Amino acid sequence: MSRPVYTHAELRRLIDPASVAIVGLSRNEKSFGARTAANLSGFTGRTWGVNPNAAELYGIPCFSGLSALPGVPDCAVLAVPVDAVLPLVEECAALGVGGCVIYASGFAETGLADRIDLQNRLAAIARGSQLRIVGPNCIGLINNISRAGLSFASGYGARRPATGPVAIVSQSGGLGQALAQVAERGGSYSHFMAAGNSCDVDVCDYVSYLADDPGCTVITCIAEGLKDGERLLQAGERALAAGKPVVMYKIATGTAAAKAALSHTGTLAGANAAYEAAWRRLGIIQVDNIEDVYETAAFLAKAGRPRATGVAAVAASGGACVITLDKAEAAGVPMPKPAPATLAVLDANVPDFGNPSNPCDITAQVATNPGSYGACLEAMLADPGYAAVLVMAPSISDPGTPSNVALFSGLAAKAGKPLCLSWMSEWKHGPGAAAAEADPHVALFRSTAGAYRTLAAWLERERRITGPAPRPRGGSPNPAAAHARALLAAAGERLTEREAKAVLAAYGIPVATDHVVQDADAAVTAADRLGYPVVLKLETPDIAHKTEAGVVRLDLHDATAVRGAFAAIMDAAGRVEPAPRIAGVLVQPMIAAGLEIVVGSQLDPTFGPMVVVGLGGVMVELLHDSAAELAPVNQQQARDMLDRLKGAALLRGFRGQAGADIDRLAGIIVALSELAADLSDLIAEIDVNPIICGPGRAIAVDALIVRRS
Amino acid sequence: MSRPVYTHAELRRLIDPASVAIVGLSRNEKSFGARTAANLSGFTGRTWGVNPNAAELYGIPCFSGLSALPGVPDCAVLAVPVDAVLPLVEECAALGVGGCVIYASGFAETGLADRIDLQNRLAAIARGSQLRIVGPNCIGLINNISRAGLSFASGYGARRPATGPVAIVSQSGGLGQALAQVAERGGSYSHFMAAGNSCDVDVCDYVSYLADDPGCTVITCIAEGLKDGERLLQAGERALAAGKPVVMYKIATGTAAAKAALSHTGTLAGANAAYEAAWRRLGIIQVDNIEDVYETAAFLAKAGRPRATGVAAVAASGGACVITLDKAEAAGVPMPKPAPATLAVLDANVPDFGNPSNPCDITAQVATNPGSYGACLEAMLADPGYAAVLVMAPSISDPGTPSNVALFSGLAAKAGKPLCLSWMSEWKHGPGAAAAEADPHVALFRSTAGAYRTLAAWLERERRITGPAPRPRGGSPNPAAAHARALLAAAGERLTEREAKAVLAAYGIPVATDHVVQDADAAVTAADRLGYPVVLKLETPDIAHKTEAGVVRLDLHDATAVRGAFAAIMDAAGRVEPAPRIAGVLVQPMIAAGLEIVVGSQLDPTFGPMVVVGLGGVMVELLHDSAAELAPVNQQQARDMLDRLKGAALLRGFRGQAGADIDRLAGIIVALSELAADLSDLIAEIDVNPIICGPGRAIAVDALIVRRS
Repeated sequence: MSRPVYTHAELRRLIDPASVAIVGLSRNEKSFGARTAANLSGFTGRTWGVNPNAAELYGIPCFSGLSALPGVPDCAVLAVPVDAVLPLVEECAALGVGGCVIYASGFAETGLADRIDLQNRLAAIARGSQLRIVGPNCIGLINNISRAGLSFASGYGARRPATGPVAIVSQSGGLGQALAQVAERGGSYSHFMAAGNSCDVDVCDYVSYLADDPGCTVITCIAEGLKDGERLLQAGERALAAGKPVVMYKIATGTAAAKAALSHTGTLAGANAAYEAAWRRLGIIQVDNIEDVYETAAFLAKAGRPRATGVAAVAASGGACVITLDKAEAAGVPMPKPAPATLAVLDANVPDFGNPSNPCDITAQVATNPGSYGACLEAMLADPGYAAVLVMAPSISDPGTPSNVALFSGLAAKAGKPLCLSWMSEWKHGPGAAAAEADPHVALFRSTAGAYRTLAAWLERERRITGPAPRPRGGSPNPAAAHARALLAAAGERLTEREAKAVLAAYGIPVATDHVVQDADAAVTAADRLGYPVVLKLETPDIAHKTEAGVVRLDLHDATAVRGAFAAIMDAAGRVEPAPRIAGVLVQPMIAAGLEIVVGSQLDPTFGPMVVVGLGGVMVELLHDSAAELAPVNQQQARDMLDRLKGAALLRGFRGQAGADIDRLAGIIVALSELAADLSDLIAEIDVNPIICGPGRAIAVDALIVRRS
Repeated sequence: MSRPVYTHAELRRLIDPASVAIVGLSRNEKSFGARTAANLSGFTGRTWGVNPNAAELYGIPCFSGLSALPGVPDCAVLAVPVDAVLPLVEECAALGVGGCVIYASGFAETGLADRIDLQNRLAAIARGSQLRIVGPNCIGLINNISRAGLSFASGYGARRPATGPVAIVSQSGGLGQALAQVAERGGSYSHFMAAGNSCDVDVCDYVSYLADDPGCTVITCIAEGLKDGERLLQAGERALAAGKPVVMYKIATGTAAAKAALSHTGTLAGANAAYEAAWRRLGIIQVDNIEDVYETAAFLAKAGRPRATGVAAVAASGGACVITLDKAEAAGVPMPKPAPATLAVLDANVPDFGNPSNPCDITAQVATNPGSYGACLEAMLADPGYAAVLVMAPSISDPGTPSNVALFSGLAAKAGKPLCLSWMSEWKHGPGAAAAEADPHVALFRSTAGAYRTLAAWLERERRITGPAPRPRGGSPNPAAAHARALLAAAGERLTEREAKAVLAAYGIPVATDHVVQDADAAVTAADRLGYPVVLKLETPDIAHKTEAGVVRLDLHDATAVRGAFAAIMDAAGRVEPAPRIAGVLVQPMIAAGLEIVVGSQLDPTFGPMVVVGLGGVMVELLHDSAAELAPVNQQQARDMLDRLKGAALLRGFRGQAGADIDRLAGIIVALSELAADLSDLIAEIDVNPIICGPGRAIAVDALIVRRS
């Protein structure tokens, strides 16, 4: 059981201290201690230094040791070499210090056993005390509200960046600092928090703290390894409950080394599928590039929540309008036509050679006339069909642009909707850029494609967080759980097809009827009872791919064929090495051909039970056309999974071919996801392949279940 | 026949004038004439004004009219209202002026008939004279080498941007100006050229001029509508021949209204497929966003041509290394391991907690030690496996970064390879950025993903332009052309299957044997001769989708089946409305099942004959899995087309299923492309669907050819 994420109260002394001690404050101005002192120059609380050889340094009173301070500091910054860290941390814990920040490197990141052990001893102190530890191997953190610069980051104290609603959380100090430099171009932030080696406090804890901190409204997170899915989900749920969007940039999204998995579903989902499922579940907005992180977060902080599902665009040229259509289409953002009242205003203001529509080519003439420009924008912003208005700013005229920001801001504030500015100029810090960055209502994008990707994510997040919530992962199990548990307990490590189908059936998943027989006569009797044509398959826990092993015979139309098939299967089974355990032969009705779907579950090492669906055959095997979610899912999520398949059109019936019964299929996905979640302590993997679907029918004709070892 | 693109000599007086006249030079400092005068303040040639009411304005001598000037100007800038344009253009042509620039709006862009007519009169003057005309409705052009600011763009004369090897060509003045503002952050350019309404000179002409201009080495082009494919190809070929990469951002890439096309291939390729094929043929690098244009061009100008196929990356943290792997994988850029000599240097310089590999985590410690840093970079740059080295710059340290640029530049210059800098900081104009922009050996990227996309395009361009050249479009036809022409001439508007297959066969494409019969007895005789099983199909030019019409019967195993099929087909044919012309019934051998491929050609409205290939069935119909090229293609291009298919793995044999004979299939694509190119005056559309493939075989079993009407 992993430790729950820390609460705001548990981290408050660390992150929002009233008093700070810099241990190892030195006369060397380049030292980490001196840089920390400089970074605390604007701090609203008290700062003490620990240096036995000075009474005061940089205006900070110094003392001989932690115990000699005038009080117990809320936070101690340990600007000391690696070897001095452990006794100081022990002392902090003993004294009742609230938190400490460890800069020193030379711990677990070296990969050396003794250094890993040293870090583990720090972790043990944290576990056994109220002392919260940041680092080691960490640049520290900055509370940009109280100006607590608990970091050796260069220049914070001198620059004093603007305070704003976006918090920056990053495992890597360097990547986090790259983001924090938004302050140099008009951006702002509430907190900068690096986690380093995370022996105690990690990025999940930071997100949890920020969820309940009034100083921030949007949380950004740059994560490298996030191994503990449970805590990530906790942190995300806390942010979701607090109404704060999280913008996540997780690196290492490429394909990891292929997992050795028994079944098809084991390799169905991509390496990053579980994380993406977690982001969907939590309403977390994932970005693919570091340069998108702040832009997205700043937009969300300015935008609030959308009140419509479409977007409008305004440009001063036809070409820029076409770009908005290209990028809206690529991102899937609807650009509905203006309402009649809007159109009337556009018609009255846009000259004949413009285009009073959406996108609206107002012409360069109107763009330089604040009256007409303002009237058009006001009408677009007031239109109930638009959640936001995007203005294309193709080039910069020196005096004009900043005043436009004031115009834009006033109109956006009045409408209570964000006005987005697509900054197309290569003069990236040109006139007006800083004003737009700093404005609370105007969101600046340096890429039109990025603007539409963000708008799409904003609209999609709203759809997700307002939809029916999925069943909680720890919620009460399906009533069928006890029966399914009993069936599993009676089975071996790998269930036979018949056993697996019985477990599925317990959860209400329709499975092909079967009879297990021990000889050809019994097979014929069973077939006669079922009606022809039938299928014969070896019943064994030991062959995962039965068709390849030659122990399946399809489409048997009479008793003779059944007898022949029985003999052939036993013959083929006799040739399999090592000899499989044989529980008999299954006789099943031959299910009429239809669309084949694969549904399965697997245990993700980070997030536990997941449900995966794909289209059978070449679609899933060659094109990796699958959708995955954390289990359990609800009916709406299951439908969304089906919608996300590249071949979704096949489900709806493509070019005259029959489609599938989507509701029925979604119901199967829900049931299988509940089975996987309820019995995640017992089941490692489920592979239902295929489910044969058609209008009004969906039936599992083969299934594999592997128990957890 | 479209006008050929203008040559450098034909545009020289316009673009590189020795003398310029500003017609309509005015005392109003905000007027376009006055702004042009300011933009000519650094011009190395002579400038005259035309203003009957002044002897001198802004230090420029003024004259009463064009004919009163001291000489015939090379270029006249017409800063006059729309109504004054036509007589002035007539006068320019009569006087022998080399070129004129028309700023005024109110021409074809209004969509009004009289204004379109007015523009056509300007075009007629251009056609009938040596006067080259830019515009109307145009911001003009800037020769940033001679400082000829033939534009009303704001502030050019005062700012005098740095001169560099990248030329900016744009239909839209606004979008072009957005690019030209790179000068404000350390970038540079040789020319800025907007085309406006392009009544005479257009972006293709500009590219042609620049191909032969020594002042530029890389050409960027922002294009909206490019209707004349022939001239685009000419311009691109000229740039290719001159060894100058073209970076193209073409807007309007979204799906156009679906084309009404008879056959599947008619809609196979996406709306932008013909343009993309042209870019591939010409080695043009396409970018998807305006913000990628300059970054890509500046890299190409600094990089020269690659001498290896892999790339190396260096970072000061493990996280940044992971980002390079993510983005290299996404872009398909190989990151080979270092050569032994390289590894020895890395091993000697990188501490234990770093990673001496590719990507190389040199650690922050080495990153602040120029000696070790330089040694590592030098070794990476010297490694023959690397065409370029990418350095991840995650955050900015104020004094350090600019000096690093000097270090990087020296090493890159010595190695003769580009050093790329991925600028991850949100401080986009931070310390060192301008130095990197201005440096001739260090290429600056503000997105790691963008850096790898560019590197991928650079390496791919090299592969394309060094591969076997495709047969020229106007080259001598295949020897079979005359026979195929005769067959087409004898056919109607739509060829029957038998006729179409005869045309294909003339080009050596293997087609299923057939016999055309008029009654059931003859059908049986033919089937007996071919051997069973056979296929019967109605032979008619009037039914494009024969299976749907019920006039195809497959897999007939004996004479009885053939007789029944004949009757059934005639019966079904009798029910088709309107009644089809019937040329008999085809009897063909039933080709054994295999992989089905669709190959076709269509006439693109811009580029003429194209060849398209796709995988049959759901792959092409649902997933639009197709590849298109301008016809004709060579064997290498045909293989590349097959490789580009999403389902390419099926061709190579997937999961034990037989694949296709790739060489044979490529040969069919080549032949069909030559047929389409050679007979593009006669053939509108070819649809060979399917070609049934397997190891050692590929045979067309059905075909449709539609003649040009």
